[in-house]
Amino acid sequence: MTTKTVQDVTALGLAARNASRKLARLSTEDKNRVLLNLVELLRSDQAGVLAANAEDYQEAKADGLDESILDRLLLTSERLNGTADELQRVAELPDPIGEVIETTSLPNGLVTSRRRVPLGVVGSIYESRPNVTVDIFGLCLKSGNACILRGGKETIRSNTALVALLRKALTDAGVTTDAVQFLDNPDRALVDAMLKMNEYIDLLVPRGGASLVKFVAENATMPAVTGGIGVCHTYVDRAADLKMAVKIVHNAKVRRPSICNALDTVLVHAEIAADGLPLIAKELTASGVELHCDNRALSILGPDAPDLALPASEDDWGKEFLSLTAAVKVVDSLDDALEHIETYGSGHSEAIITEDDSAANRFLDEVDAAAVYVNASTQFTDGGQFGLGAEVGISTQKFHARGPMGLKELTSYKWVIVGQGQIRP
Amino acid sequence: MTTKTVQDVTALGLAARNASRKLARLSTEDKNRVLLNLVELLRSDQAGVLAANAEDYQEAKADGLDESILDRLLLTSERLNGTADELQRVAELPDPIGEVIETTSLPNGLVTSRRRVPLGVVGSIYESRPNVTVDIFGLCLKSGNACILRGGKETIRSNTALVALLRKALTDAGVTTDAVQFLDNPDRALVDAMLKMNEYIDLLVPRGGASLVKFVAENATMPAVTGGIGVCHTYVDRAADLKMAVKIVHNAKVRRPSICNALDTVLVHAEIAADGLPLIAKELTASGVELHCDNRALSILGPDAPDLALPASEDDWGKEFLSLTAAVKVVDSLDDALEHIETYGSGHSEAIITEDDSAANRFLDEVDAAAVYVNASTQFTDGGQFGLGAEVGISTQKFHARGPMGLKELTSYKWVIVGQGQIRP
Repeated sequence: MTTKTVQDVTALGLAARNASRKLARLSTEDKNRVLLNLVELLRSDQAGVLAANAEDYQEAKADGLDESILDRLLLTSERLNGTADELQRVAELPDPIGEVIETTSLPNGLVTSRRRVPLGVVGSIYESRPNVTVDIFGLCLKSGNACILRGGKETIRSNTALVALLRKALTDAGVTTDAVQFLDNPDRALVDAMLKMNEYIDLLVPRGGASLVKFVAENATMPAVTGGIGVCHTYVDRAADLKMAVKIVHNAKVRRPSICNALDTVLVHAEIAADGLPLIAKELTASGVELHCDNRALSILGPDAPDLALPASEDDWGKEFLSLTAAVKVVDSLDDALEHIETYGSGHSEAIITEDDSAANRFLDEVDAAAVYVNASTQFTDGGQFGLGAEVGISTQKFHARGPMGLKELTSYKWVIVGQGQIRP
Repeated sequence: MTTKTVQDVTALGLAARNASRKLARLSTEDKNRVLLNLVELLRSDQAGVLAANAEDYQEAKADGLDESILDRLLLTSERLNGTADELQRVAELPDPIGEVIETTSLPNGLVTSRRRVPLGVVGSIYESRPNVTVDIFGLCLKSGNACILRGGKETIRSNTALVALLRKALTDAGVTTDAVQFLDNPDRALVDAMLKMNEYIDLLVPRGGASLVKFVAENATMPAVTGGIGVCHTYVDRAADLKMAVKIVHNAKVRRPSICNALDTVLVHAEIAADGLPLIAKELTASGVELHCDNRALSILGPDAPDLALPASEDDWGKEFLSLTAAVKVVDSLDDALEHIETYGSGHSEAIITEDDSAANRFLDEVDAAAVYVNASTQFTDGGQFGLGAEVGISTQKFHARGPMGLKELTSYKWVIVGQGQIRP
């Protein structure tokens, strides 16, 4: 059935809400059975998904979409196996639901505890990458939440085929297929309807570019995750191990330049800039990174500067490049670095390279970001890397969850109070 | 200085934001010094506050405000001492800031931990009770947050006098008075401006009636607490200890009928209604409680029913009475009770009275509310009673915090990652 009207979207919401009450009480075994069914289907029943994806790909190519979008929407057998592997890891994670967070016996004999419960219904609006369909579903189901999915119109066939697998995995495990609701119509008016359904959606997770995240933040009537946008700095302190700095800065920029935890700006302390900056610049430019340098950095690099070293303009500071470009600035002190990060950072991931513990501690204390690093690459900011198993996204807000959001971050709690007739004086 | 324009409100926001960066790093000793200074001032320097409050009171009386509002806005020496006592307890609570929530050593040698940090700036919009000025300030300061306060226009003089004490307590401890920002102009347009300042306010806490909470939820551009509204049920199961049921139902309604955790509806299992309902009704009506009964309850109470037993109308279910009125309904089963609560409850506090463990467990599992009780009065839902020391309010939403919000619920965390040169493969 195709979702055509605002009423249809509301019906999806109501179905998800009803399903969520059942999912909240589903056993760990039943949840894992659904996930492992899906792992199996993703590995052994790929033909339909790959055929649908080929159609999406051809149409996107004919429409002249960017190489980077084409790459993101492409599914291959290998990619589907990778998605299955991730889902298997989610199945292996402990079930967060029912966990007792804290128990206290009060002097009056009441025993209070907080018990972890699902949020209820998680909505996700995402772009390009069809594997998000599986990822969000897997994390939501394991955490006892129903989900409402709205992917990009460029992957509508791929997502439809994947949702058919999700439903088969549910049915084969005897779990209601209402656990996943799929908005199979790319009409933008239906997204607007979804954003108004605070009665049916407890959390909205936008996955995509800055404009999508901003649109959702401004228009959603329910809580929404703000995140996925990272203007990330690495500050090379005067007490840095330069060899380590070169290696970390290179990794933070070059490993995958298109993700939100990739380095955007290198700040180099003036005292080591003469020695360090040429080494850093050489390593980056050798990998094709274009450097937008402030005047002091340019003059240090001097006449032998690589061709890729260019003058920075004001809007290079605070820019998320998502490509092989980095801004470079010389600073006079840790304080100047902290101030620059406060002014231009987006609160995602920030790093200091230093052997000086007191500088490291000031950086960790004073930088206000989801993830703060000493002597490591900011590319580690990721639910899998941080031991959460997987993530629905990376939050840069302070409310509810900050940084990578895994299973626990899709839960709430209830207070459970057990008495023997206590009344309040 | 009086706040007159939207620009003035923005200036308060900026000042709070700047102060919040300092407060985040304030020592526990400095924070407690401010709080204990204020405890002392509230006990020994009451004249100015009481005089200002007398003026507010006279004006409110002349304006013909309700007895209940007059009572809430009245300050007495005893009430100020009570507020001071509560503040002293906040000073004695452990400082949540800097707490390391979890530390993990990853296989690659990275050590990740989550460190508790303040939210930043907390805004509060509240009505009538001037002690909220002190309560919110105390909890915000102890949790390292700056606050922006906007009290009701009926208590503007009282709040102005109290804020003078807050500022003196800050100054005497050498802490910036920008830690508290006070909107000393009751103009509603300035509240609208406050609701738009998501750049400067991290969390908004409305304290007041349902219409205020709804207005804030719908118009705030930053996260806001939804709560403080409770349609609370107590279900007397067929396996209830009737003597206990009578005592708990009476306490849940009568102890303080005007607060959000007070009982609104009693549900009584049909099998024990003939024995139990008359006992419950007798005890409630003896305290002046008017009972709005469904037909079965009325017929059980029969011709000897107390005068205060009246027929219920449909809108009695789901109503928050906040007075000496209760709705009464006979149900055929635990399932019927659960369904009634799901339909009409507001997700605040719900109780079952039973000696049957399996009924108790189903109730605790299946009722979706901030606080679920077995054999105790719902009036216990309170930060102080739950061992949080104090509360800024009671949340009925699932995002971030649910139930009473104390110091920890005014915090976020940052991921801290310490490496020795790790790069991501």
